[in-house]
Amino acid sequence: MIAGNVQRVRVDLGDERSYDVAIGAGAIDELTAIDARTVVVLYDVAVEPLAQTIIAEFGSRVAFQRGLVGGEDVKTWGLAGDIFDWLADAHIDRDTVLIAVGGGTVTDLGGFVAATYLRGLRWCAVPTTLLAAVDAAVGGKTAINLGAGKNLVGVFHHPSFVAIDPAAFATLDPRDVAAGVGEALKTALVADPELFVYLERNMGRALAADPEVLAITVARCVAAKARVVAGDERERDDTGAGGRAILNFGHTVGHALEKTCGYGALRHGEAVVLGMRAALALSRERGLAPALADRIETLVNAIPTPHPEAAHDAVIAATASDKKRKAGKVRFILIRDIAQPYIVDDVNEASVRRALTALA
Amino acid sequence: MIAGNVQRVRVDLGDERSYDVAIGAGAIDELTAIDARTVVVLYDVAVEPLAQTIIAEFGSRVAFQRGLVGGEDVKTWGLAGDIFDWLADAHIDRDTVLIAVGGGTVTDLGGFVAATYLRGLRWCAVPTTLLAAVDAAVGGKTAINLGAGKNLVGVFHHPSFVAIDPAAFATLDPRDVAAGVGEALKTALVADPELFVYLERNMGRALAADPEVLAITVARCVAAKARVVAGDERERDDTGAGGRAILNFGHTVGHALEKTCGYGALRHGEAVVLGMRAALALSRERGLAPALADRIETLVNAIPTPHPEAAHDAVIAATASDKKRKAGKVRFILIRDIAQPYIVDDVNEASVRRALTALA
Repeated sequence: MIAGNVQRVRVDLGDERSYDVAIGAGAIDELTAIDARTVVVLYDVAVEPLAQTIIAEFGSRVAFQRGLVGGEDVKTWGLAGDIFDWLADAHIDRDTVLIAVGGGTVTDLGGFVAATYLRGLRWCAVPTTLLAAVDAAVGGKTAINLGAGKNLVGVFHHPSFVAIDPAAFATLDPRDVAAGVGEALKTALVADPELFVYLERNMGRALAADPEVLAITVARCVAAKARVVAGDERERDDTGAGGRAILNFGHTVGHALEKTCGYGALRHGEAVVLGMRAALALSRERGLAPALADRIETLVNAIPTPHPEAAHDAVIAATASDKKRKAGKVRFILIRDIAQPYIVDDVNEASVRRALTALA
Repeated sequence: MIAGNVQRVRVDLGDERSYDVAIGAGAIDELTAIDARTVVVLYDVAVEPLAQTIIAEFGSRVAFQRGLVGGEDVKTWGLAGDIFDWLADAHIDRDTVLIAVGGGTVTDLGGFVAATYLRGLRWCAVPTTLLAAVDAAVGGKTAINLGAGKNLVGVFHHPSFVAIDPAAFATLDPRDVAAGVGEALKTALVADPELFVYLERNMGRALAADPEVLAITVARCVAAKARVVAGDERERDDTGAGGRAILNFGHTVGHALEKTCGYGALRHGEAVVLGMRAALALSRERGLAPALADRIETLVNAIPTPHPEAAHDAVIAATASDKKRKAGKVRFILIRDIAQPYIVDDVNEASVRRALTALA
């Protein structure tokens, strides 16, 4: 990818909801081509200058704008309710397009508001963190957190357009870069062997937020996720052959760690990196070739994460409230090779404890 | 329809979401055939005995149950948030089916909770009011109210099955029967000439809650609405040729009256009857044949409604916040003949004032 160019990835949903993800320095400029009489802009105050650029581009078409302090605390039922009242006061109608600018928490919230207000407004995502770009921007998942767990409330509502300018990643905290690289590696492990090799060769530059490496990484992740989502839009395929659930590799223990340690102590991507280590340990137990497991672990371990203090009992209990449970059983995504994931629901507690011990 | 028999109407959505509506004395019994490991039952305390019968049928499969005081006050953002917390406490997973038993407010709320919890649980509706049976049970609309207006938040989420036992209508307040008959007449006017003729011949028995007449009326309404919904599932067809928007006949002024008078002063179906009178006056202005208009008005006027005190200025202002607005314009559904509806967005204020005067 040449800097300044815009690469487009089509998310093909088989109908008129299909949409493009634009990645590159000019991606943001394409937003204003949206067919919308008016727009609403919800943005993370951490990216206020970018948001104000977008707002200025839309000029008098902006019916409502609001800066929010991004992070898991933004994804609350109460704030969503407040936003609905603001939209009602602004007399928003169904021709309005909502634009969410920020990390995954702001795009999750914005997408949820768009999905439910007036039974569905069109919306666009402008992910400004690496994690949001590689993960939250594609797939149509929107979400609100409850006290009992993350993302327990939400609907599927695909955006009409996603604009990603990798320049936004230059100002990210190194932990946020690492978190995003972790999710990218997850995508590689379940769906893109070429990206795995690319990350093996470029992990140092990726973690240093090299814009060229991150642009390529984002484009590959978006394309891989678009393929998976196109095949199983609502995560109903449980065969593990290629269903959307494979994207939850590392998430069973990852979500449980986030919940046990308190949201905020661990970034989502960091929790997924730790969860991947656990999933790799379990995969190894079930036959993932030791040489390959070593090679993957070397790459996973290259991604810096905190070492949270979490009692194993609490983590195991937290896996039991994961919303991905089916028929009351806790599911794990494991791999037998790169891009060969499978789903199991018969992992016993002793195995999970061994995997958690391996994290320390 | 023979009493005791169950009549089934298929709602064909063109995919695996298609479902049946069962109408008759044995309809409730078919609920337990649902493929669900566990169920959650949300019910209106006004139909506690029926709800407890259903709960007893499911036995140990009931993971959570809660009685609610039905009415518009139940459709709040706050209560939906409370229900999510209860479901999380009960460790509900995606194999759970939610069953909503009650009038349209309880089924609207239950459907919304099912649509958004864990990004979508399956659900069944057991409408126990005539209004809910003829209107809310088919179409997949779920909703929550805001202070600014009714049904401003919601998503489309079709039930997996709907069970209607007309015996439930025997205990309804006469106003609730009239409200339901009003919605049935609305359906006839926009989509079913035979039902119009049937109601002309049987209006007295319908208003007296004659079970045979109501069973036939409900089945015809469900079938008519299923046809309309199948053709335009998400209310995107604005041509007026047969799109779902035609079901909003009487709703522009109806919703505005509900809002202006305060929800509760007017039942929804009563407001729709008043709104239909306004829509008929406007239809007459635009060429509905006077003889037919007189005949329809005679039937509409046979349905008793309160005569709410509402300032015309306030009603007109309230139409401007209707969520059915497109491009900032207020839309009306009018008819040029029975089952020949069309949509206009150029009704001037003077015409609306004349129509409101005609209500008094």
